[in-house]
Amino acid sequence: MADKLYDVVGIGNAIVDIIARADDGFLSKHDLAKGFMRLIDAEEANRLYEAMGPAVERSGGSAANTIAGLASFGAKCGFIGRVAADQFGGIFRHDIRSQGVAYETLPATDGAPTARCLILVTPDGERTMNTFLGASVGFTPQDLDYAMLHAAKIVYLEGYLFDKDEAKAAFRKAAREAKKAGAKVALSLSDAFCVDRHRADFQALVREGADIVFANEKEITTLYQVNSFAEAADAALQDCEMAVLTRSEAGSVIVGEGETVEIAAWPVPEVVDVTGAGDLYAAGFLFGLTHGAPLETCGRLGSFAAAEVISHIGARPETPLRKLAKEHGLIA
Amino acid sequence: MADKLYDVVGIGNAIVDIIARADDGFLSKHDLAKGFMRLIDAEEANRLYEAMGPAVERSGGSAANTIAGLASFGAKCGFIGRVAADQFGGIFRHDIRSQGVAYETLPATDGAPTARCLILVTPDGERTMNTFLGASVGFTPQDLDYAMLHAAKIVYLEGYLFDKDEAKAAFRKAAREAKKAGAKVALSLSDAFCVDRHRADFQALVREGADIVFANEKEITTLYQVNSFAEAADAALQDCEMAVLTRSEAGSVIVGEGETVEIAAWPVPEVVDVTGAGDLYAAGFLFGLTHGAPLETCGRLGSFAAAEVISHIGARPETPLRKLAKEHGLIA
Repeated sequence: MADKLYDVVGIGNAIVDIIARADDGFLSKHDLAKGFMRLIDAEEANRLYEAMGPAVERSGGSAANTIAGLASFGAKCGFIGRVAADQFGGIFRHDIRSQGVAYETLPATDGAPTARCLILVTPDGERTMNTFLGASVGFTPQDLDYAMLHAAKIVYLEGYLFDKDEAKAAFRKAAREAKKAGAKVALSLSDAFCVDRHRADFQALVREGADIVFANEKEITTLYQVNSFAEAADAALQDCEMAVLTRSEAGSVIVGEGETVEIAAWPVPEVVDVTGAGDLYAAGFLFGLTHGAPLETCGRLGSFAAAEVISHIGARPETPLRKLAKEHGLIA
Repeated sequence: MADKLYDVVGIGNAIVDIIARADDGFLSKHDLAKGFMRLIDAEEANRLYEAMGPAVERSGGSAANTIAGLASFGAKCGFIGRVAADQFGGIFRHDIRSQGVAYETLPATDGAPTARCLILVTPDGERTMNTFLGASVGFTPQDLDYAMLHAAKIVYLEGYLFDKDEAKAAFRKAAREAKKAGAKVALSLSDAFCVDRHRADFQALVREGADIVFANEKEITTLYQVNSFAEAADAALQDCEMAVLTRSEAGSVIVGEGETVEIAAWPVPEVVDVTGAGDLYAAGFLFGLTHGAPLETCGRLGSFAAAEVISHIGARPETPLRKLAKEHGLIA
């Protein structure tokens, strides 16, 4: 698959992050569970925004962050995700394109505005996310760009988007198209609550559509309703080729290709904001995988990219990862 | 004037900053003069935005930054400035209000969108600003909030907005209303090019309307068409009570109340982005002035606030200035 145009094409939510600092008291007052993502409607988004402190806006979205990270490593990438024809949609399009990512999804000219995620960063670096999905969640199979899917080495699917029926149908269709063209399909489970709501459908998608699954400990044990990480990893390997399992500061484990590789977390002087840690881990890992690196190097690239993104506010890399990885001797 | 509701009410452009890193080659390629602000139209704003790298959005605007800085010190403030009824307008309103600033200017429901400033930050920390003034520049005397002006100890006018006839008329009216209610009027010259374009009108405004003038060396010498800083300071004192003159890393000079006070620049470990340095100097200075501090302390508070804002990306303080100033023993 060396002659494919794209290393990775991602499909996911197209979101603008609105990031503010908050203390634990603010979270309690607004009944927000620290460290989790929850979905909110337009009215609650407005209410919470009113109550929040001064904020900064940056493009986000889980798979979009991964793709931006891959592009920062120098990978050739595309992204598919739905915004509205409004100012936030313009920000999203600009930021992903200016990373060198192909992005051609047409903006919706009616309906809900572009998705936004109100992110509260507490002094411990934890991020509590409140997502109004707006235009993003209206994703349908018609939003798929087949030419882009056919031109990918890996198609990367964001679990957060696997929620509404039309979006689910789009994921299944995308997985079929990818396979038809000889691409691998990677799926990020994204969120334990989402997995819990759609367990059977997620299991079927992993079994029938995915070659590689990305998950954290909570997500993978929720998917297979088992108690231990080891049981979950075994179950995953029954369904797909490879599972890439992240464990925050305990590092990560990769099972697949007949081996189990454990990777330590990359040391970080100060954790400022953990938003995007999993997304950037996937970016580093997939950069390695699409460039012929052994699994251990893939995992180290993942840890490395996650470390960069948790060292500052926001879920997109601030330092070009290719240059940084070269300085650390991770890539030639 | 101890019983006034507001320490300072600002009038200025209501702008959302779009900030990206760029190298010197990018500036040359697009004919941008490093360190300057220039006005661009919608078409050029779109063209330049296309060419820029991934960006971050934050509220800005010169006087709005000053007012946000004052609020961060704990001052009671209001702001008057014009946005459109769009998403960027919503960001601007949220950010200034969430600082505790009163902001009641009605958004324009037709005409140009909310103003934006494309800011390119070079590796040396210099910022090159490209401003599309959009809705902001449509400011008229009808946008003035008299109750707010009458309730201020100081009304602070942003020179950048003193460009179109209607906005000029609004400034003159605001100055008259402020004086009627016993408020002082402060004017920031903002920009040497703007001063050059409207020299006679600026001179008249200083002479007839302003009690305090804020300027850098270039702006004050341009206003009086003199060669030296000393001559310019003398000329300013013929026209108003006090001139507060900033000189970047050479510190600042305050002339007024029969004395001349020189203030050293506050030391900064690393200059990351000079955007907002002058705005935050004014914030610190005016906080001191409205809280009875001697001129030297006012100047030190200005230098201190400027140092905070140039230590990070963006023109609004990231650390609450009241707390920080207490830690440094600047305020009780």
